[in-house]
Amino acid sequence: MPAYGNDPLTGEVARRFNALFERDVAVFLVSTGTAANGLAFAAACPPYGVIFVHAAAHAQVDECGAPEFFTGGAKLIALHGDNGKVAPGTLAEALAHFYDGFVHHAQPSVLSLTQSTESGTVYTCAEIDALAQVARARRIAVHMDGARFANALVHLGCSPAEATWKAGVDLMSFGATKNGCLAAEAVVFFHPECVRSFDFLRKRSGHLVSKHRVLSAQMLAYLDGDLWLRLASHANRMATQLSSALHGIAGVRLWYPVEANEVFVSFPGDVAWRLMAKGASFHPWQVPGDPAGGRMCRLVTSFNTHADDVDRFVELVRALCEP
Amino acid sequence: MPAYGNDPLTGEVARRFNALFERDVAVFLVSTGTAANGLAFAAACPPYGVIFVHAAAHAQVDECGAPEFFTGGAKLIALHGDNGKVAPGTLAEALAHFYDGFVHHAQPSVLSLTQSTESGTVYTCAEIDALAQVARARRIAVHMDGARFANALVHLGCSPAEATWKAGVDLMSFGATKNGCLAAEAVVFFHPECVRSFDFLRKRSGHLVSKHRVLSAQMLAYLDGDLWLRLASHANRMATQLSSALHGIAGVRLWYPVEANEVFVSFPGDVAWRLMAKGASFHPWQVPGDPAGGRMCRLVTSFNTHADDVDRFVELVRALCEP
Amino acid sequence: MPAYGNDPLTGEVARRFNALFERDVAVFLVSTGTAANGLAFAAACPPYGVIFVHAAAHAQVDECGAPEFFTGGAKLIALHGDNGKVAPGTLAEALAHFYDGFVHHAQPSVLSLTQSTESGTVYTCAEIDALAQVARARRIAVHMDGARFANALVHLGCSPAEATWKAGVDLMSFGATKNGCLAAEAVVFFHPECVRSFDFLRKRSGHLVSKHRVLSAQMLAYLDGDLWLRLASHANRMATQLSSALHGIAGVRLWYPVEANEVFVSFPGDVAWRLMAKGASFHPWQVPGDPAGGRMCRLVTSFNTHADDVDRFVELVRALCEP
Amino acid sequence: MPAYGNDPLTGEVARRFNALFERDVAVFLVSTGTAANGLAFAAACPPYGVIFVHAAAHAQVDECGAPEFFTGGAKLIALHGDNGKVAPGTLAEALAHFYDGFVHHAQPSVLSLTQSTESGTVYTCAEIDALAQVARARRIAVHMDGARFANALVHLGCSPAEATWKAGVDLMSFGATKNGCLAAEAVVFFHPECVRSFDFLRKRSGHLVSKHRVLSAQMLAYLDGDLWLRLASHANRMATQLSSALHGIAGVRLWYPVEANEVFVSFPGDVAWRLMAKGASFHPWQVPGDPAGGRMCRLVTSFNTHADDVDRFVELVRALCEP
Repeated sequence: MPAYGNDPLTGEVARRFNALFERDVAVFLVSTGTAANGLAFAAACPPYGVIFVHAAAHAQVDECGAPEFFTGGAKLIALHGDNGKVAPGTLAEALAHFYDGFVHHAQPSVLSLTQSTESGTVYTCAEIDALAQVARARRIAVHMDGARFANALVHLGCSPAEATWKAGVDLMSFGATKNGCLAAEAVVFFHPECVRSFDFLRKRSGHLVSKHRVLSAQMLAYLDGDLWLRLASHANRMATQLSSALHGIAGVRLWYPVEANEVFVSFPGDVAWRLMAKGASFHPWQVPGDPAGGRMCRLVTSFNTHADDVDRFVELVRALCEP
Repeated sequence: MPAYGNDPLTGEVARRFNALFERDVAVFLVSTGTAANGLAFAAACPPYGVIFVHAAAHAQVDECGAPEFFTGGAKLIALHGDNGKVAPGTLAEALAHFYDGFVHHAQPSVLSLTQSTESGTVYTCAEIDALAQVARARRIAVHMDGARFANALVHLGCSPAEATWKAGVDLMSFGATKNGCLAAEAVVFFHPECVRSFDFLRKRSGHLVSKHRVLSAQMLAYLDGDLWLRLASHANRMATQLSSALHGIAGVRLWYPVEANEVFVSFPGDVAWRLMAKGASFHPWQVPGDPAGGRMCRLVTSFNTHADDVDRFVELVRALCEP
Repeated sequence: MPAYGNDPLTGEVARRFNALFERDVAVFLVSTGTAANGLAFAAACPPYGVIFVHAAAHAQVDECGAPEFFTGGAKLIALHGDNGKVAPGTLAEALAHFYDGFVHHAQPSVLSLTQSTESGTVYTCAEIDALAQVARARRIAVHMDGARFANALVHLGCSPAEATWKAGVDLMSFGATKNGCLAAEAVVFFHPECVRSFDFLRKRSGHLVSKHRVLSAQMLAYLDGDLWLRLASHANRMATQLSSALHGIAGVRLWYPVEANEVFVSFPGDVAWRLMAKGASFHPWQVPGDPAGGRMCRLVTSFNTHADDVDRFVELVRALCEP
Repeated sequence: MPAYGNDPLTGEVARRFNALFERDVAVFLVSTGTAANGLAFAAACPPYGVIFVHAAAHAQVDECGAPEFFTGGAKLIALHGDNGKVAPGTLAEALAHFYDGFVHHAQPSVLSLTQSTESGTVYTCAEIDALAQVARARRIAVHMDGARFANALVHLGCSPAEATWKAGVDLMSFGATKNGCLAAEAVVFFHPECVRSFDFLRKRSGHLVSKHRVLSAQMLAYLDGDLWLRLASHANRMATQLSSALHGIAGVRLWYPVEANEVFVSFPGDVAWRLMAKGASFHPWQVPGDPAGGRMCRLVTSFNTHADDVDRFVELVRALCEP
């Protein structure tokens, strides 16, 4: 098999993404979401550029400075916003602090939106479009961190094209690992202008896998027969089931609209601790501003969450909260 | 004359700084404040580190991403605070979002304080000490951006040692250009541990001047006979005179305590514009949050501001505001 | 399963490498050899450092500048040497051009040896030891690029410990992909001093795989029952069979001692072209100095090369060369 | 005076360079030659690019990795050549090892020529043109490191335009410090295409001097009334006088044609040492290949070398060599 992406499976991935997005796109596979984001930024942002992100974005909080590393030192500006979303006005206000061509200012280059967001919510197509218009007015690229794109798309019920380039997205990190793949993510360019250097950036960061078909085979299986959407639908349903069942239990508080596969909740007293002690697996969650006084937990459902598991977890919560 | 800092004048600079700070320090001269800050950060912060700054700090706003460049991609976290100052609680809260050794988080490495601040105020020694204690609890270095250190020191009325290392500062950018030099700044290390690589970092960023005595001669003249303090005293006096005189003019609003050589003011209607049209030289000033509704102006006094000029400017303001 | 390497399989990998190398080592898995090399260099070399490599080394020729990228701009110095090997005298001569502590010179930091070499030869343990002594005299780290370490080890017939740290190697890229894994390489540190920052460097370069057990499972299977050595033995045998059979065919010239799984050969006239036209898969090979006048080809055997395939290839060569 | 280059003196510098080079150029001032080279490379070379230099070039040997730093990790390839010059065939051969668009190879981007060379010789316009043709065939930019451009120009006796863009040079570092200025160098672009990002690159590397007129005033004085050419003529004459007088002294060997302001010589026995002991100031000189067996010395004449000093030095040499 030819190495480095010259194999037939990788060619098939390219065709599949064109079909998926109803236009010619350029698609590159890598093995982690951090690499997908970092390389996308490096392609779209000069070293002296600014990348605008939500203050809770993975790229800002959980990638150990990868965006700064891949771009050669771009500046990330963290924007606050309810429910994990950036509001167009907030973006516009932040952009106003940076003057185009003013040599003392790093230059606005990229808006990165997380879809679904770090709060488990989903930008509507209209919301994306409104943000993209603000971005376009300053000629900055719109990037979507779609680590959980499938969950968002299922919630929106629209086409991949409508949820991305038709709403003004220029390039995206198309996640697959969190939704079932072993280790496969795609960087997708909806316009060719940033693509020229991408091959070199990927190679020199060690992200061009020699037996590249290992990535391609995962991605093809993921897309085959809409498996990715079925997996995400299931995960979202489990989240809905979970949040509905938790709703109303004494002392339990839900924090954001549940629109994808994450439920943010706070438990009373030491219930979180006792749930973990009984084997429940979830993480404490810190958010900018922290409305939950340090008590917020993130519950993630996935393609392999069983409805029975959800029920058992809820029963456990109820037993601890309403003894 | 030996080149690259092996000349007698540069040796004398080293002795002078030891005396000035009442301890052995390591001192390196460069020609810009942006270089001084960037190199100081590079010495104290790994590429995966976090540098905490005030949201209005020069390093965050006006250096076109230099800190990110010099450090190889460190992350700057912008902290908000009244009067241009970071509060200890704000720092502590921000630090709490970064877990030591947690691989997904960039690692807290440096707190950078601007003295005097970008709002023309001055941290007291007690305020610095309180911040340094928070920093030390997380083993992060305290950097002072002293582009206007002389103005702050004159206001504080204490010794350079008291205003820096005795209050917990580990390294500083010691400004001289804004207070009279042509182009000379010093990076001063109060502890030797960060110094080892500094020579190489300075050279490879093009900041080792071959005829190094050009920098040293400026710095010696600056320190001779406390010239630097006399120049800063004058600048501060002019700012006080200016703000006192502006106070009470109809529609003129002063925004921050005037403690150094900067006065922040908003003028009514189109007065700012008309002042400029009559030859007054100042800049519109944007700050995070912008309490002045886009009307804030920064008036800077300096070593070569004349009292008569201040009077004339005030008269002009009065004439425009109280016609 | 816990993510990011906190799973039991990854714990088992750590234990297995300790046993393999007969000492405590620190081991980190990544998915490409370019990442393994780049991260190893970043851990052992400051941005102002020098990495000495053979002029034909993969890190110099075939990684699109990855070492420079990962290190933040270290300088690679290419050394020439017969049969793909660096000679101790050549290293000593190159080191003499860099003065320790001399600010104008990038500072010698790493010697990187490729084992087996890019010419299909193998450094003896004595050769490594001699180079390591030159390196140690200047306090620079010895890195082994072991993308084909298994093939070298089988040829040497010694233990992994003898071929590495006992001969003076400080850290290595332990390859597995070329010898049968899908995508798995290890960075191994024989001394702990460089390890502190490695976790952060790996994460921020996007090389911390979330479902890390995917890498660990490959590595465990690779090491189980000495599978890796059996695979490499087979590949080496196929190379020996191939070179022996090619030897003596009219116009065919072999270029280097065949000690691992590569055979370098030049064919007369248009034979190389006609072999490719008949479906043979190999690459033209350029080397510094190019003794073969642009005619050199690299023939690689592997774990899945069949003896029959070798025979068929040789017959094809013979038929074309001796019609 | 407006800061950051918006002053009238800096405007005058721009006009003067247009006149000097008989075309519209873009000119930027910085304070060191290392910065000029590094920033020029950063403007003309992507992070995954290759910069070809002579093995003895300042950028390769004496800048502590600055080119790698400014470019974000470009690769320098050192070319050998007699008399400090790169030969067109050598460049062509080196270029042949890098395939355009081949993802594993860093991509050829810049040829940097040193004029006058590190061996004190001068490329003729025809030699530059021949190299530029090789470069142009691969679409790489031609950079001239003109730290000693004035000395070269005086030797060539042609116009600045003929010695640069008319011979195919795309951008240059125009040195002034070594020929009389305190600290002033210019980066000159003969074509606008690389210029767009330069302002930001300069600022973020700390090389935008706030009181920019300090640099401009130096450069204007340097160019006024052809002062720069008169200073260089004198320096060159002193070198010629020195080499002529040394020629024929027993045991003294001259190594390269003396065409600018440097004389490379080896002295017998311990004469070099004894000259230094008597107060002569020069440096031992190491060159790739070292034809002088470690005995080569570099004697530099300058704008402030007196003919009497040359005579005294020569007499000293004669007395020590022919006692």
